[in-house]
Amino acid sequence: LKGAIRIAVDGMGGDHAPSEIVKGAVEAALQHGVEVVLVGRKEILRSELARCAPWASSLPIADASQVVGFHESPAAVVRDKRDSSIVVAMNLLKGGEVSALVSAGNSGAVMAAALLILGSMKGFDRPALGALFPTPSGTILLLDAGANVDCKPDFLVQFAHMGSIYMENVFKVSHPRIGLLNNGEEETKGNRLTKEAHKLLRKSQLNFIGNIEGKDIFRGLADVVVTDGFTGNVLLKASEGFSEIALNFLKQVLNSKLEFKVPGFFLAPALEAFAKRLDYSEYGGVPLLGVNGNVIIAHGRSDAKAIKNAIRIAKQTVEQGMPDVMRG
Amino acid sequence: LKGAIRIAVDGMGGDHAPSEIVKGAVEAALQHGVEVVLVGRKEILRSELARCAPWASSLPIADASQVVGFHESPAAVVRDKRDSSIVVAMNLLKGGEVSALVSAGNSGAVMAAALLILGSMKGFDRPALGALFPTPSGTILLLDAGANVDCKPDFLVQFAHMGSIYMENVFKVSHPRIGLLNNGEEETKGNRLTKEAHKLLRKSQLNFIGNIEGKDIFRGLADVVVTDGFTGNVLLKASEGFSEIALNFLKQVLNSKLEFKVPGFFLAPALEAFAKRLDYSEYGGVPLLGVNGNVIIAHGRSDAKAIKNAIRIAKQTVEQGMPDVMRG
Repeated sequence: LKGAIRIAVDGMGGDHAPSEIVKGAVEAALQHGVEVVLVGRKEILRSELARCAPWASSLPIADASQVVGFHESPAAVVRDKRDSSIVVAMNLLKGGEVSALVSAGNSGAVMAAALLILGSMKGFDRPALGALFPTPSGTILLLDAGANVDCKPDFLVQFAHMGSIYMENVFKVSHPRIGLLNNGEEETKGNRLTKEAHKLLRKSQLNFIGNIEGKDIFRGLADVVVTDGFTGNVLLKASEGFSEIALNFLKQVLNSKLEFKVPGFFLAPALEAFAKRLDYSEYGGVPLLGVNGNVIIAHGRSDAKAIKNAIRIAKQTVEQGMPDVMRG
Repeated sequence: LKGAIRIAVDGMGGDHAPSEIVKGAVEAALQHGVEVVLVGRKEILRSELARCAPWASSLPIADASQVVGFHESPAAVVRDKRDSSIVVAMNLLKGGEVSALVSAGNSGAVMAAALLILGSMKGFDRPALGALFPTPSGTILLLDAGANVDCKPDFLVQFAHMGSIYMENVFKVSHPRIGLLNNGEEETKGNRLTKEAHKLLRKSQLNFIGNIEGKDIFRGLADVVVTDGFTGNVLLKASEGFSEIALNFLKQVLNSKLEFKVPGFFLAPALEAFAKRLDYSEYGGVPLLGVNGNVIIAHGRSDAKAIKNAIRIAKQTVEQGMPDVMRG
């Protein structure tokens, strides 16, 4: 594994930590050829690793004695929990000992630690979470998905710049099309924030294609969709909820009649593929853009598969030269 | 049809007006036992009616010479287009000649006309659009779905009151559970608007159950979910987009292999039922709450089925004593 990309994984963060996190990290090390450094309580992580596979016992661990809960205040964590897995992992990234960090822990604390320890990138004083969604024709990046719940119009322009650079470099989209999430297509539509942001985006050098309504997000009309972190977060989570309910409805319908049993059996692989396309954990994690380092925030409910995929995203992000390319 | 509920239908509003609107109105008259009054250009509506069925030629028409486009300013429509189908229909409702109004036209203009002609209800100075969503266990009402794009915290409390009364009366839910749409479950989460609204809702007499995240909206944890009209509108439209993409993915998957053809054929009725559950037009329209009259706003893209269903919702709304019960 000489020369392999090294990625710190917060072993203590997430609803299913540490077991699922460790399992996902071990699988990623095997499948994606990366070197994972698990961060957290050494004894616990060591025994979890041993449970995964004998060879895994020798994977590197960075000891961190403190654990961060989901309800702790982000500011207090960064200030008072210097030996927490989140802060220790962030310091590894800051020091260049790893090239990326993946955490399914308290996302507010991860963002606060990133901002304070790594610092925001020049020109982008507002880091944003970028959520990736599949469309019939590709992938779109929605940001901000939750870092800034109260936004000013120029924040949205910064998000657009970050998103444009990200999609151009990581997803190889030339001249990414930027859309502004709004409650109507017309230029005159919007709340105070989006009306003003629309004007600023028009004046920018970006490939701004105008307003995008909720129904068009998933159609792939734009490559980057910008919005405030409140709306973006609600939307990101709602998309999960939709997936769940769609699969539920489908199951209900297929179980509603006896005559559906046999054809349903033959279609099982198709239905599995369908569920997979709708599954948030296929994308694994959302990158935090605009900080001096590659930070991937995984879902709090991440299982091993989601963590493995988040590590894959982290690897791709490093391979594409992030965050340096964003500095321009 | 003596004693039947009379409903005005804007014959000129919507992407598929007048033909689909007229068709939906005729079908509703047949199936739901209501009396529809089509509003718009008499000659056009008369000939559309004749195309539907010979008996339909005699359905009542309220003549209105002007047509409202989707991009016209709501204020200008109400001020200058006094003989438009929207304004004429609203006056019929105001005058008591009909008990409800359905329009798939310029929704901003319909809301402005409702506010100016019918007036807002005492105690509710901010009318809100209430969108109905199916959940595995029932129906939830999300409001505001687009009437007030910039909100103050007390607007959200008013929406909660309106939603509570609506669900209690129209959907017969006792002590409707009120949730506040937010970017996290914890009380401390939120943007400026939702943090303040949370406090006000806590102090109210409502059955407030706390914050609801995007993923939980469709799970039926609450009966009424309140949010600002910007977020609500984005979410309502995104849910449509999502339904579309889910059906698309399912079709792609089923067409991906030859061996899925035969079982797919036998499952066709199941897949149709699934599509129906995801289809926005099953609910047909969203009620405008807080004005002195029953106004149902149908989707701009409404086809005959959506209009028929919107008229059904209008009928139910009248039968449940709206808007009088809301006055308390």
